[in-house]
Amino acid sequence: MLDKETYEKVRKKSLELFEKAGIALREDEKENIEIVDGGLGNVEELGLEIVTYVNTDRYCAKEMVLLPNQTCPEHKHPPHDGDIGKEETFRCRYGKVFLFVEGEKNTWHVQPPNEYFTASHEIILNSAEQYTIPPNTLHWFKAGEEGAVISEFSSHSDDATDIFTDPNFKRV
Amino acid sequence: MLDKETYEKVRKKSLELFEKAGIALREDEKENIEIVDGGLGNVEELGLEIVTYVNTDRYCAKEMVLLPNQTCPEHKHPPHDGDIGKEETFRCRYGKVFLFVEGEKNTWHVQPPNEYFTASHEIILNSAEQYTIPPNTLHWFKAGEEGAVISEFSSHSDDATDIFTDPNFKRV
Ligand SMILES: [Zn+2]
Ligand SMILES: [Zn+2]
Repeated sequence: MLDKETYEKVRKKSLELFEKAGIALREDEKENIEIVDGGLGNVEELGLEIVTYVNTDRYCAKEMVLLPNQTCPEHKHPPHDGDIGKEETFRCRYGKVFLFVEGEKNTWHVQPPNEYFTASHEIILNSAEQYTIPPNTLHWFKAGEEGAVISEFSSHSDDATDIFTDPNFKRV
Repeated sequence: MLDKETYEKVRKKSLELFEKAGIALREDEKENIEIVDGGLGNVEELGLEIVTYVNTDRYCAKEMVLLPNQTCPEHKHPPHDGDIGKEETFRCRYGKVFLFVEGEKNTWHVQPPNEYFTASHEIILNSAEQYTIPPNTLHWFKAGEEGAVISEFSSHSDDATDIFTDPNFKRV
C-alpha cells in the first residue's frame, strides 16, 4: 500500500505527463489515478499509473503513464473462466516505450531493474507507434528518460487473474 | 465516391483537428485517413473521418474527426454471425459532440441536416466526457462549431453489417 505522500507525489507527476501528452481528463479522473506498485516499495522505479476509461464484458480502454525510466513489472494474462486471456494493444501517445515480449532475444536499449524479468524481445515504441500483445504472453515495459503515455486497447480486463513473475508482487 | 480534390480538402481539415486535439499520428496514418460520405454528396455536412488503430476479433479502437457542424449519419450495429452487435464507447478528446441515441426525446441543442434521423435523446459530450452505446441501438452525432475529435473504443468492428437510416447511404 502506498503512503499518502508518495501517492500524491506520483499522482502529480502523472498529471504533468498527461498534460504533456495532450490527454484531456476530467477532475474525477485526475483525483483517482490508479497507482500500481504491487507492494514492491519503489514505485517510481517499478510501477505504473492508470486511468481506466471503460471496461465492459467485451473490451477495455485505459490511459497509462510511465514516469521517466519507470518499469512496469513483468506479467501475463492467462486463460480463465472460458476467456482465452486478455489481448492488449499498446499505442504510444507521448515519449518512448521499451516493450519486451516473449521471443528471440535481440539488442536491448534499456535494462530491467531486477532479476524478475525474462521476456527478452525488445520492441521500441515512439509516439504514434503501437504493438499488439497476444494473450498469455509475458511482457514488461519501461519508459525512456522523458517518461511515456500509452493508450491500452484490449479485450475485457480482469486484473485478479494476472500472473506476475516477481513472487513479491501483490495486487492490493 | 469522393473526388480527389474533396478528399484532400477534408483530409487536411481533419489533420488540423487531430493536431488541435494533440493526437499523434504516423505519416502512413495521415496519408490514409478514411473519409466516409456514403455517397450522400456533401461530406462536410454529412460524413465522418476515421483512423482505425486496431480491429481484432475481440476489440477495436479508432480516432474519429467531425468537422465543424458535421454530422455522422444515423445507423445501428445489429446482431450478426453469432455476435450480439457492436458496443461502442465514445470519448470526446477535443471540441463538443452532440450525440443522439434511441430514448426519451429531450431538449436538443442542434438539428439534423435532413429527415433521416430518428434517435431523439441528446447527450452532450465535452472534452474528456464519454458515453457507451449498447448494441443494436440507433445513433447519430454532430460536432459543435469547433469540430470534434472522438476516440471510439468498441467490440470488433464490421462496417458491412451496419444499418443506416438513410436509404441513400452506400458503404463503398
Ligand atoms: Zn499486460
Ligand atoms: Zn456506430
